[in-house]
Amino acid sequence: MGEFDLITRYFTRPAKRAVLGVGDDCALWQIQPGMQLAVSSDMLVEGRHFLSTVPPKRLGHKALAVNLSDLAASGAKPVAFTLALAMPRIDESWLQGFSAGLLALADLHQCELVGGDTTQGPLTICITVMGEVPPGDALLRQSAQVGDDIYISGSVGDARLALEVMRGQLSLSASDFESCRQRMEQPEPRVALGLALRGVANACIDVSDGLAGDLGHVLKASQVGAVLTTDWVQDSAAISAAMQSLPFARRLDMALAGGDDYELLFTAAPEQSDAVQHAANEANVSVTCIGRITTGSGLQVLDLQGVPMSRRFASYDHFAN
Amino acid sequence: MGEFDLITRYFTRPAKRAVLGVGDDCALWQIQPGMQLAVSSDMLVEGRHFLSTVPPKRLGHKALAVNLSDLAASGAKPVAFTLALAMPRIDESWLQGFSAGLLALADLHQCELVGGDTTQGPLTICITVMGEVPPGDALLRQSAQVGDDIYISGSVGDARLALEVMRGQLSLSASDFESCRQRMEQPEPRVALGLALRGVANACIDVSDGLAGDLGHVLKASQVGAVLTTDWVQDSAAISAAMQSLPFARRLDMALAGGDDYELLFTAAPEQSDAVQHAANEANVSVTCIGRITTGSGLQVLDLQGVPMSRRFASYDHFAN
Repeated sequence: MGEFDLITRYFTRPAKRAVLGVGDDCALWQIQPGMQLAVSSDMLVEGRHFLSTVPPKRLGHKALAVNLSDLAASGAKPVAFTLALAMPRIDESWLQGFSAGLLALADLHQCELVGGDTTQGPLTICITVMGEVPPGDALLRQSAQVGDDIYISGSVGDARLALEVMRGQLSLSASDFESCRQRMEQPEPRVALGLALRGVANACIDVSDGLAGDLGHVLKASQVGAVLTTDWVQDSAAISAAMQSLPFARRLDMALAGGDDYELLFTAAPEQSDAVQHAANEANVSVTCIGRITTGSGLQVLDLQGVPMSRRFASYDHFAN
Repeated sequence: MGEFDLITRYFTRPAKRAVLGVGDDCALWQIQPGMQLAVSSDMLVEGRHFLSTVPPKRLGHKALAVNLSDLAASGAKPVAFTLALAMPRIDESWLQGFSAGLLALADLHQCELVGGDTTQGPLTICITVMGEVPPGDALLRQSAQVGDDIYISGSVGDARLALEVMRGQLSLSASDFESCRQRMEQPEPRVALGLALRGVANACIDVSDGLAGDLGHVLKASQVGAVLTTDWVQDSAAISAAMQSLPFARRLDMALAGGDDYELLFTAAPEQSDAVQHAANEANVSVTCIGRITTGSGLQVLDLQGVPMSRRFASYDHFAN
């Protein structure tokens, strides 16, 4: 099978909303009148973003999920994506699994694969996802306001916990490991929550490099500071049963600096708290208030007694780790 | 320097047309009312699409050029692009050259870098480019008509010729090599020609994998056949001075199956020949008529005596070569 056959077999389906899909120099489609286009690209490299042992179907899911998570953080509705794929060789069984996982998630979000590229090379996946958002409705990093409550969706720390177990640095019960591994390998992008938070949240970002570090991007862009509490790391919907099995200090690391969570971290005015809960119910995901936006700059993390901690929770840097 | 600093230093510039540029989860912009969006992704891998010795400035140029060439082939006007970049390590001198070459070509075509991703990994560049085209005006592969003349823009074969010299399989005068190397390392996407061919050409494709192979994609998509002449390989604007120094048979290989040309191959009704020349003049590039679309299927190449050749000119396959 050659390059063009594999594109036809695994990645070409009849165009749905697209005017022209896979198979020409460009894909073509018509944006809804008046809408703004939201675009994001992510590149996943074997050994850095995923292990060589991950089942291809889960990898296909994750490759699109991390991109949809960026749209979610912007409050944009997914419409289409392109896939560029470098592979060491053509492995049909791998391609079958990968495309099945990828396209199942795409279908779930009605996000159409419209084009891309395949080539020989070290296993690398680059997806560019496009979405639509009404002008002025996009959720940005730069709009956090002093006094805003800070929320996190779902739960954090599980993906990192799974990684530590795989590295042999921790052990978990089989069922706890399986649930964490699921979070690491098949994150669920919070698209519905992002849409429901339009007009409710002030600022939003998706947590991919670690909660504290990603919150830092919001603070910098909004020119504000923040205080994070930690009682929610003790006991809340944001901490899974698997995480509960860890000592508190370890749990704090995983929750605030674990990475690969793909949850939404957002801020909203205190008077929006009912609207935030309503959005969460609508999107069928929990949200937990974890702190407050302040004047000044930088992030202060309070311990369980409310005393500022001296420790730093670093963001994941792809060139430093 | 970390990941976020390098993005700020080398790839972040104030948004021009974009509503929101580099630095948030998504970039945002507003499509011109009524326009269709054209999108294409290309991934370039070191050792396969470029040599490790290529000056980074030229590589930055080429990475965007091959994507703009896809927009040109669709008759779309470039508006924005994303860049995803995997690098083994942060090399500031490399980044400076790469971004300078990339952004100079972007400025030339008023195509704005709006977002992307950087990570550690084997040197891999993935660009997704977006353009605008009025509904119905896009040039497609599937619209070639029986009786159409087939044209090629500029000249073909030079990039492959440069590669053969680099591989030590051919030799050229220093000045001929320099001009071929320029064609290989800094192709000029035929954006202006693509725009001028709207309403004039019936079908269009950019030649990246070899003229005969890429013409084959047009024939398949349009369900037609074609006859190519070869007298133009003997002597025409489509064959450079460097190519003229080769024996005819070698020249034929380079011209029809060389690859990396980034010229436009298009078809137009014979009565459009004046309009084709007018478009070429407007875009300041030569065009050469090289054959005709026929009924049936497949490609027939005629020798200088007009006799069908038995040789095949294969398309470049990234997994077979």
